Amino acid sequence: MTNTSPLNKAIDHFQSNYDLYFKKFEEFLRIPSISADSTYSGDIQKAATWLADYLKQMGMQSVQVFQTAKYPIIYGEYLKAGANKPTILMYGHYDVQPPDPMDEWKSGPFEPVIEGKNLVARGSSDMKGQILAGLYAIESILDAGALNVNLKFIYEGEEEIGSPSIVEFIKEHKDLLKSDFCLNLDAGMLGADKPTIVYGLRGLAYFEIYIQGPDHDLHSGLFGGIVYNPAQALAELIAGMKDESGKILLPGFYDAVIPISEDERRELARLNLDEKYYMKQTGTSQLYGEAGYTPVEQIGARPTLDVNGLRAGYTGEGPKTVIPSTAMAKISTRLVPNQTPEMVNQQLIQYMQEHAPAQVKWEVKQLSSDPASVADRDYFATQCFVNALKEVWGVDPVYKREGGSIPIVSHMKDILGIESVLSGYCLPGDLIHSPNEHIHLPTWKNGILANIHFFYNLGNKDAC
Amino acid sequence: MTNTSPLNKAIDHFQSNYDLYFKKFEEFLRIPSISADSTYSGDIQKAATWLADYLKQMGMQSVQVFQTAKYPIIYGEYLKAGANKPTILMYGHYDVQPPDPMDEWKSGPFEPVIEGKNLVARGSSDMKGQILAGLYAIESILDAGALNVNLKFIYEGEEEIGSPSIVEFIKEHKDLLKSDFCLNLDAGMLGADKPTIVYGLRGLAYFEIYIQGPDHDLHSGLFGGIVYNPAQALAELIAGMKDESGKILLPGFYDAVIPISEDERRELARLNLDEKYYMKQTGTSQLYGEAGYTPVEQIGARPTLDVNGLRAGYTGEGPKTVIPSTAMAKISTRLVPNQTPEMVNQQLIQYMQEHAPAQVKWEVKQLSSDPASVADRDYFATQCFVNALKEVWGVDPVYKREGGSIPIVSHMKDILGIESVLSGYCLPGDLIHSPNEHIHLPTWKNGILANIHFFYNLGNKDAC
Repeated sequence: MTNTSPLNKAIDHFQSNYDLYFKKFEEFLRIPSISADSTYSGDIQKAATWLADYLKQMGMQSVQVFQTAKYPIIYGEYLKAGANKPTILMYGHYDVQPPDPMDEWKSGPFEPVIEGKNLVARGSSDMKGQILAGLYAIESILDAGALNVNLKFIYEGEEEIGSPSIVEFIKEHKDLLKSDFCLNLDAGMLGADKPTIVYGLRGLAYFEIYIQGPDHDLHSGLFGGIVYNPAQALAELIAGMKDESGKILLPGFYDAVIPISEDERRELARLNLDEKYYMKQTGTSQLYGEAGYTPVEQIGARPTLDVNGLRAGYTGEGPKTVIPSTAMAKISTRLVPNQTPEMVNQQLIQYMQEHAPAQVKWEVKQLSSDPASVADRDYFATQCFVNALKEVWGVDPVYKREGGSIPIVSHMKDILGIESVLSGYCLPGDLIHSPNEHIHLPTWKNGILANIHFFYNLGNKDAC
Repeated sequence: MTNTSPLNKAIDHFQSNYDLYFKKFEEFLRIPSISADSTYSGDIQKAATWLADYLKQMGMQSVQVFQTAKYPIIYGEYLKAGANKPTILMYGHYDVQPPDPMDEWKSGPFEPVIEGKNLVARGSSDMKGQILAGLYAIESILDAGALNVNLKFIYEGEEEIGSPSIVEFIKEHKDLLKSDFCLNLDAGMLGADKPTIVYGLRGLAYFEIYIQGPDHDLHSGLFGGIVYNPAQALAELIAGMKDESGKILLPGFYDAVIPISEDERRELARLNLDEKYYMKQTGTSQLYGEAGYTPVEQIGARPTLDVNGLRAGYTGEGPKTVIPSTAMAKISTRLVPNQTPEMVNQQLIQYMQEHAPAQVKWEVKQLSSDPASVADRDYFATQCFVNALKEVWGVDPVYKREGGSIPIVSHMKDILGIESVLSGYCLPGDLIHSPNEHIHLPTWKNGILANIHFFYNLGNKDAC
């Protein structure tokens, strides 16, 4: 009877315990573990403790909460499968993006509610739901008595602020973290019926630019016309960073970029992500972009520059006739191989030196710095994951070069020498980093089933 | 004995009651009557009541608090001098600018403290201190039994938000407000030893520009490169509003501008306000401005455009990799005769139509709209005020065209047919509209003495 096979037992376990699992998920989402705002540092600690406790009650061993300069890294392991079985390093982050702008949320960002088939809350899709999709699968196989892979867990609380502590941590704990490969569920799917393997990631170099004009705010009537308004200077500097065709004008910005090959262009074209698709995803009536590239090429294989924030002067209700003394922009670039964040930092500083007006002072601060990466699509664990996805969805997964940055992938490769299997159950419309972030519950459930298949096959089958 | 002359009695009264007057001043300053932020509407009402009560206890008659659509207008009168004596309309505003940015205040904006010779608080100089400088002078002359002018008072609570109610109010109360001229102490002095008459004022047209790109905030990794970032579009639009020589590029912006005459250039040059003076006032190491004009010409006689506020995306601590769905700028232009705010509104809309990228939606909102004005320097009441200033300071006052907007001056002229005497005791370094606004107490006291001379001379001398 197939019903009593360990695989089906595991699936049954998950399905009959779904309500309980769902409650725990909501509990995790209620902790506002926002890493970008230090007001929430107590909540980050709370989320770390919650996760460590969860690993312990699952029966994971050696669970430890390592303090770092900022937020804890959680470690745990399960090594009972023995030395002839593979060891998987499970990576995740329990911190979330700030919920701003607050007034666009239809419900509280940390008060999960079900809307149709979605569960709405900050962190639901990015990535508390992805962490639990891994843990619930493992618990289910454990319950079925069929967990025959070794596991190590590393969960950080600083991913959304550029992971300042994890590189040192991995370097200092190379032996502890020794594994065969990493499973990272922080990437997404192209659609609810398109399970996806991500093999390429853009890097990120994130900056704050400060402009100082007069040494105090001035009355725009009494002094308007004789000082260089720092908000004007900032606008001019930002405007000058791109030409009309969308090309980025930081000096030498494209010098190191590896052009996309014709082969890869053909592959990416097969993803069938047309302009219409992206217009719907972004809610715009007209796309934009560097001339000569399709949207999917632009997102996956071309570098970009975006303004992430602007602040100057008075932005409250009504007119305030002020010339601000300072102006600030947050600006980030997405990088492709072989650009490095250090290069871009230099290019931006050179650009400011060449273009900032003499009447203002300026400062550039680099906030995060992650290299780009492209991984091997034929790696055995990747193929094993591909098969698990196929068993649940009944279709061939697609391969994608992603626009986002998951710098931990490069670090795993460079420091531990291991590949990452990069997938996950986040959909393009999940509004991650935006108000009303949610996770599509049917996709999440399928994801847990796919994870069950993956762990089960890897531990119990000769080939998967 | 000169000591017992009514004039000296009035001066004595003021000097011996100074502590009490100072306490009442502090009491007035403690009311956060911020008109731009509706959170403070209760405090505006409180300030209105405080001022109306003050007029009543001075013995002013028919004191009334007129409700408007927003904040009250206070009226009061003193008509005992008789029909053959002049009637002065005392204008003032009891509302203040928002205190932002809060973290730059060294003390609470509504907790007055003495710092050296200054009293620090929002509204101290602009213009609660100026209102009281008028009232304390009147009280002092009343006490000396020598108030032989008629007075009418009109105080509004909406000056800092563009005075949306006062025009209608004046139109509806023309008889009530009938006077010979207006005394408006909302202008300033060029220095503690330079009493000043302002005869020209720039107008103001203030706008909010909204840009909408994608219909929700996007992850800059997942979508960066294919959407027109609204913050980028806003920066480009602002950058394009001026050329490198500081010339404003709104279509037709200078068409109506009356060029400054050679005569006036010579007069303004005699003010002796050089670049060094303005560099010190503004705290900049290098000035800026439209080519071909001195700073004092630029401020007084040339129109300008300034960014007063910028807001887009995430501006909190740390990196948030968001493409904002909207961006907003507050932008204002200072106008000279014969430009009108309506012209500028049309020019800005035309500019946006011609330059906003097709990928974004935009909206322009006009927040305030005040015409420019130039007044007659030889007007009898102006000359009477000049003499009062001279009696106290011992120097000839200077005449200035001011950069700010005091639109009420045009309204007094247009609706009531009366001239305004425009002066006041605010110094250029008083940081009005900025953090740490203060009033220079020795100048304020001199101002009260000058007001005493003015009211006394006007009521008791044949020529003044």
